[in-house]
Amino acid sequence: MADKSDGIGLVKGHTFTDHTFHHYSEMNVDRIYMDCNATTPLEPEVIQAISEALQDAWGNPSSNYIAGAKAKAIINQSRENVARMVGGKAEDIVFTSGGTEANNLVLHTAVEHFRKSSRAAEQREGHQNGCTGRPHIITSNVEHDSVKLVAERLQMDGKADVTFVPVSKVTARVEVDDVIAAVRPNTCLISVMLANNETGVIMPVREICQRIKSLNKRPERLRILLHTDAAQALGKIRVDASELGVDYLTIVGHKFYAPRIGALYVNGPGTTTPLHPMLFGGGQERNFRPGTENTPMIAGLGKAAELVTSNLSDYESHMQSTKLYLEERLQAIFTDKIRFNSHYPGSDILPNTCNVSILGPTLQGWRVLSNCRRLLASVGAACHSDSGNRPSHILLSCGVPSEVAANALRLSVGRGTTKADVDAVVEDLRETVQLLEEMN
Amino acid sequence: MADKSDGIGLVKGHTFTDHTFHHYSEMNVDRIYMDCNATTPLEPEVIQAISEALQDAWGNPSSNYIAGAKAKAIINQSRENVARMVGGKAEDIVFTSGGTEANNLVLHTAVEHFRKSSRAAEQREGHQNGCTGRPHIITSNVEHDSVKLVAERLQMDGKADVTFVPVSKVTARVEVDDVIAAVRPNTCLISVMLANNETGVIMPVREICQRIKSLNKRPERLRILLHTDAAQALGKIRVDASELGVDYLTIVGHKFYAPRIGALYVNGPGTTTPLHPMLFGGGQERNFRPGTENTPMIAGLGKAAELVTSNLSDYESHMQSTKLYLEERLQAIFTDKIRFNSHYPGSDILPNTCNVSILGPTLQGWRVLSNCRRLLASVGAACHSDSGNRPSHILLSCGVPSEVAANALRLSVGRGTTKADVDAVVEDLRETVQLLEEMN
Repeated sequence: MADKSDGIGLVKGHTFTDHTFHHYSEMNVDRIYMDCNATTPLEPEVIQAISEALQDAWGNPSSNYIAGAKAKAIINQSRENVARMVGGKAEDIVFTSGGTEANNLVLHTAVEHFRKSSRAAEQREGHQNGCTGRPHIITSNVEHDSVKLVAERLQMDGKADVTFVPVSKVTARVEVDDVIAAVRPNTCLISVMLANNETGVIMPVREICQRIKSLNKRPERLRILLHTDAAQALGKIRVDASELGVDYLTIVGHKFYAPRIGALYVNGPGTTTPLHPMLFGGGQERNFRPGTENTPMIAGLGKAAELVTSNLSDYESHMQSTKLYLEERLQAIFTDKIRFNSHYPGSDILPNTCNVSILGPTLQGWRVLSNCRRLLASVGAACHSDSGNRPSHILLSCGVPSEVAANALRLSVGRGTTKADVDAVVEDLRETVQLLEEMN
Repeated sequence: MADKSDGIGLVKGHTFTDHTFHHYSEMNVDRIYMDCNATTPLEPEVIQAISEALQDAWGNPSSNYIAGAKAKAIINQSRENVARMVGGKAEDIVFTSGGTEANNLVLHTAVEHFRKSSRAAEQREGHQNGCTGRPHIITSNVEHDSVKLVAERLQMDGKADVTFVPVSKVTARVEVDDVIAAVRPNTCLISVMLANNETGVIMPVREICQRIKSLNKRPERLRILLHTDAAQALGKIRVDASELGVDYLTIVGHKFYAPRIGALYVNGPGTTTPLHPMLFGGGQERNFRPGTENTPMIAGLGKAAELVTSNLSDYESHMQSTKLYLEERLQAIFTDKIRFNSHYPGSDILPNTCNVSILGPTLQGWRVLSNCRRLLASVGAACHSDSGNRPSHILLSCGVPSEVAANALRLSVGRGTTKADVDAVVEDLRETVQLLEEMN
């Protein structure tokens, strides 16, 4: 077992294997988890909050008696904690089943809002605001599938026009001027992720929002709604929805040591900012997202949010120093054979994300990973794990040459990753690369 | 504490209060939970399954290494267990965030399927199958809001016509002939709940499906899809989707001692039966319902399903005898002042549901419940708990007179409810009624 003296508690496994926070033991080999952008383990305090709610807060939160009131109180407390994490008010938080639902809900809302605005404009003749025809959505070409595929589907069904603004091949960012240049009279939504899941590149969301807010002030203009998917940023860098200036912000629990639910921050849902539900039912979440509340998971999300609010700077500096150490060690071992796909001039990168290619004709990412004895990592987004050996379209979009992208490894460290883990992983990679080169 | 000798284990609370399986202790008064149609506590083995998955199966199920494989294996096992509970195959189960989402997904699918069938028919001219104009949906007038409000919304938006077939005021069932009489050339879906949440009345879903299947054989006819929301039936009576003959069946965990997620049974999704996703994203659940899987909750759902498959007849007979004892005791104490709103000639009723009114001008359901010292129950669906003092529209639809419906109490017993609990509740009601009558 690697040294766990950084204060992160041990989580003893019950069933299949023993493991600590970032370790899986398999056939007596201690595996090291460096795939925190795919998912994170749950913090012990988060598991504790979930377990207590499973035992004690199983009442229906809508019930008018103690069992219901107790569940309701836990949900309200979590709502406050989640709001605090993103710089919002409790009423700005709508719990969802996860990030996919939150992202879908935003695009659905934008199209619905356009439709309703069009109708309203038709009804009061002479007050044209450009809001006829099809809604137009702007997003980037490196978004998660839960934005990208929704946008493509809307386009295919003739329900919206979409501009996928390409990221710069120099900075790997979507550039503010490119976004502004894509605005049309019918633009109703701009959705740009806060940080990319593969490169870790942080996008200029704040600057985009500032520029769009000036546009939105023009009286004749349809309001452009502003969304950021903060799935990969939360728990790693400071995220404040008001400072960013977004109307919507997607929150995904399992990326910050919380369970598999999520939430959508909406700046004043139904008042300041439109929110049109996709589901109809029992009225929960003020009708924005009905369905009996998943109290235990909401309790866990709230606890994890509280931990982020309290400890973010520690988490951030620990991940940053661990990643820097990882990059130094990789550079020292592989020297000129290495290429970092998460270094771009002028771009800020998530503190935990190292995307790296070790150059060589037999060193494709999938091949290296499947021969590593200890490292658990991925070549890109987990939900593309079945795309086999094709290089990541994200990296290609960022200007990474195809033969480099094919060798990419996404190493994403976490709160519990130690320097000893880094040493072990680098040694594992060294041995694996040697083996693969000898086999050639 | 009441006698818990029926073999149901104790669940000790950690935080707010001590409670056993159906008991809440509040200010030294042991409350008795008889609201199992609102929600149920979780079985200890279900909590155990969730806890183990929280600790050991936090990997992303899409990841290509041990942490992912372990999560995937748990999900597959749960899928088999849930399928077995409803008489389906593993591939027929699509996990959802809950019953609300499952019901919404069915209505969405029916409308989408109609739209696609219409387009296909247009394209091959001369092959008219009646599938032009608007889709038509048939449902009952006593459905849960997650069917009712979706149908109303589709109607309001001009996306579908809907017939809400009224239940018989004699049997409180939707009658097969009435459903068949409502069929139109454009009918694309019939959605009828398997058992009503307030009256416990079991609907003739099997007979409806048999009649519709004959209609569906006519070559010129658009296929009518068949759905039942089995939320209240599962874990209480035998439910077999193939025997019922439905295409879709809604599964809601928290009504059968499982956590707050759900699933939709679909008879051969995407092959035998259409299923059009509402969400787009990372491809999970074969693209029918993307979003990183909620492994721990899915593990709990699977364990709870396994318990139902193994123990249903015990659960059913225990609830049935407990409810009969409750009704006998109520009858003995309140004699001619009592009216059961869950007794209808010729109709089968859920074994756990007793809907009862104690007659008297000051004995409105909400007033009785708020004065009870021990009983935790409701006047109707939990999600209507804010509708205040209005009598339940469900009971009015079933022919219950308004002044009787206003006094209704829905008492729904569970696996852990004992005869001692019943005695205590009946005594509580006797004292409360005496108090309210004296205050008058």
